[in-house]
Amino acid sequence: MSSFGPETADASDVPDFAAVVAALDRLAPWLVRTPVVRSTSFDALCGRRVYLKCENLQHGGAFKYRGALNAVLQRPAAAVGLPVATHSSGNHAAALALAAQARGLACHVVIPEDATASKLAAVVAAGARIRRCPPGLAAREAALADWLAAEPAHLVHPFDDARVIAGQGTAALELLCEVPELAVLAVPVGGGGLLGGTALAARGASPGCRVVGVEPALADDAARSLRSGRRERLEGSPPTLADGLRSSIGWRNFVLLQRCVDEVLTVEETAIVAAMRLVLQHYRLLIEPSSAVAVAALLDGRLGRPGERVGIVISGGNVDLQQCRYLAAPV
Amino acid sequence: MSSFGPETADASDVPDFAAVVAALDRLAPWLVRTPVVRSTSFDALCGRRVYLKCENLQHGGAFKYRGALNAVLQRPAAAVGLPVATHSSGNHAAALALAAQARGLACHVVIPEDATASKLAAVVAAGARIRRCPPGLAAREAALADWLAAEPAHLVHPFDDARVIAGQGTAALELLCEVPELAVLAVPVGGGGLLGGTALAARGASPGCRVVGVEPALADDAARSLRSGRRERLEGSPPTLADGLRSSIGWRNFVLLQRCVDEVLTVEETAIVAAMRLVLQHYRLLIEPSSAVAVAALLDGRLGRPGERVGIVISGGNVDLQQCRYLAAPV
Repeated sequence: MSSFGPETADASDVPDFAAVVAALDRLAPWLVRTPVVRSTSFDALCGRRVYLKCENLQHGGAFKYRGALNAVLQRPAAAVGLPVATHSSGNHAAALALAAQARGLACHVVIPEDATASKLAAVVAAGARIRRCPPGLAAREAALADWLAAEPAHLVHPFDDARVIAGQGTAALELLCEVPELAVLAVPVGGGGLLGGTALAARGASPGCRVVGVEPALADDAARSLRSGRRERLEGSPPTLADGLRSSIGWRNFVLLQRCVDEVLTVEETAIVAAMRLVLQHYRLLIEPSSAVAVAALLDGRLGRPGERVGIVISGGNVDLQQCRYLAAPV
Repeated sequence: MSSFGPETADASDVPDFAAVVAALDRLAPWLVRTPVVRSTSFDALCGRRVYLKCENLQHGGAFKYRGALNAVLQRPAAAVGLPVATHSSGNHAAALALAAQARGLACHVVIPEDATASKLAAVVAAGARIRRCPPGLAAREAALADWLAAEPAHLVHPFDDARVIAGQGTAALELLCEVPELAVLAVPVGGGGLLGGTALAARGASPGCRVVGVEPALADDAARSLRSGRRERLEGSPPTLADGLRSSIGWRNFVLLQRCVDEVLTVEETAIVAAMRLVLQHYRLLIEPSSAVAVAALLDGRLGRPGERVGIVISGGNVDLQQCRYLAAPV
């Protein structure tokens, strides 16, 4: 496997809407049915009717539990008895560790040195074995390959896995069932698992809904990939505050990006911080910088038209508070 | 009316469990059905199974919408066509303004000068007319009496009103329906509306559940009242960070305190700040200092025994972020 992941794969291994529906059926008993929250003051501020799907209140504090558990519940017969393994900047690692714990499995995770302390603590608390590596996808994949060679385990890739993508789409499917007439549905894009799954859910459940990915301008590979028509990659670990979005888009997710996503927007770092603060003030919810990118695009007036219904999947809420003095200070 | 409220009233004007049930029936279509959230890491920290009922996600960001709307929906025939009026440190004012707005009524509110800016902004946004007054219950009641003399309006007291108390109890009733086997249910106590309503709900729906009020040590009138058997009052406006708990307990609520509440605990200011911070970190929820008092008692090990189920009504989430640098800094 190249450090950028496979360039091609069996087309049948890209999930479809039916896979998202089946995943929700499989996962529902294990999930927090996360609330969809509203704020009249925030609506007034941005001139839209905004619906936030609170995956920061999901097990592990992020949507990642959906995809990780979907993969664990569908592992092949050959993997029974093996640990599960992955590399992740944090949220997928914690999610896989929790999913493994729920099923009585061991879990091995490679975590880069630039992961936030709170995310690392969550992985430790869930009982996973951990190896650290330098930042960047190449180093992560190399460290995991070494470990897998020494100790066989069942790989659950953080985003380029059909089971993971289908699982991530279940958050949007729940949102669309609860709020059927969204004009726009926006989610952050890093490796693209959430965006790919969300696009599948929207195309199947609400075909008229526009699907938008948002990423930091400092990690704009998905926007560039959509423009150029080929997968562009990020070099190293971009210095964005959105630590969950430092990955290049995966192959399957690039296929779904081209097939089902209307647009990818980019936002600046200062807008990310301002969005976190406004969500805390208006919704009383702590969201992580990776979640705030979509809110930032909304505040810029770039999601939907005035008066329209805009949905956002708040992807997670894992933040190191001691690094967040800006939460209490106007930016 | 004395500035401390009436010493006696018609006993039939103290609400009962049936009034709470009727209130929930009346209010349900108007309310956010707020989530009950869990955190495995927080459970591990305090050695209890903790259930937080998130009234910080209620309309107006506090449980106060329940009682205010219940009063508005039950106003007497003589009040039809009149504005509604109250005094409040903020959350009840915003709640009554929102309830009036929902029913197309004018709303007059007296707000003390020490109210937080975010709470004041919410009242303004909901279209109420406002008069400011010095801090302390006596000044608030005097200012409101002046205004009522000049412009007749239907008074909805922030806590010493049977309709308000019954409405506030609906949050606990929802929680007890969702989590039937709580060993302890704890709520903050200021004027005592939430505690009175909660005690009624628990006695009716879950008689074995222990009901505990928690207040700042700097505003400990309910604890002193329970000990002495008579209503003790706070002088002036106590300098607690918990701005919603600076009121002395109301007459009806004192009756309910003696009749249905097991215990009132007090907590220090530093414990309130630490509790706010821990809830933000573990639950990704912003709670106001007045809500944090109950969490602080839990963290002190004073609510329930290890392994027991403890419920807390998180009363609100209205915080001035620029005053909250401590949220990002260890205390």
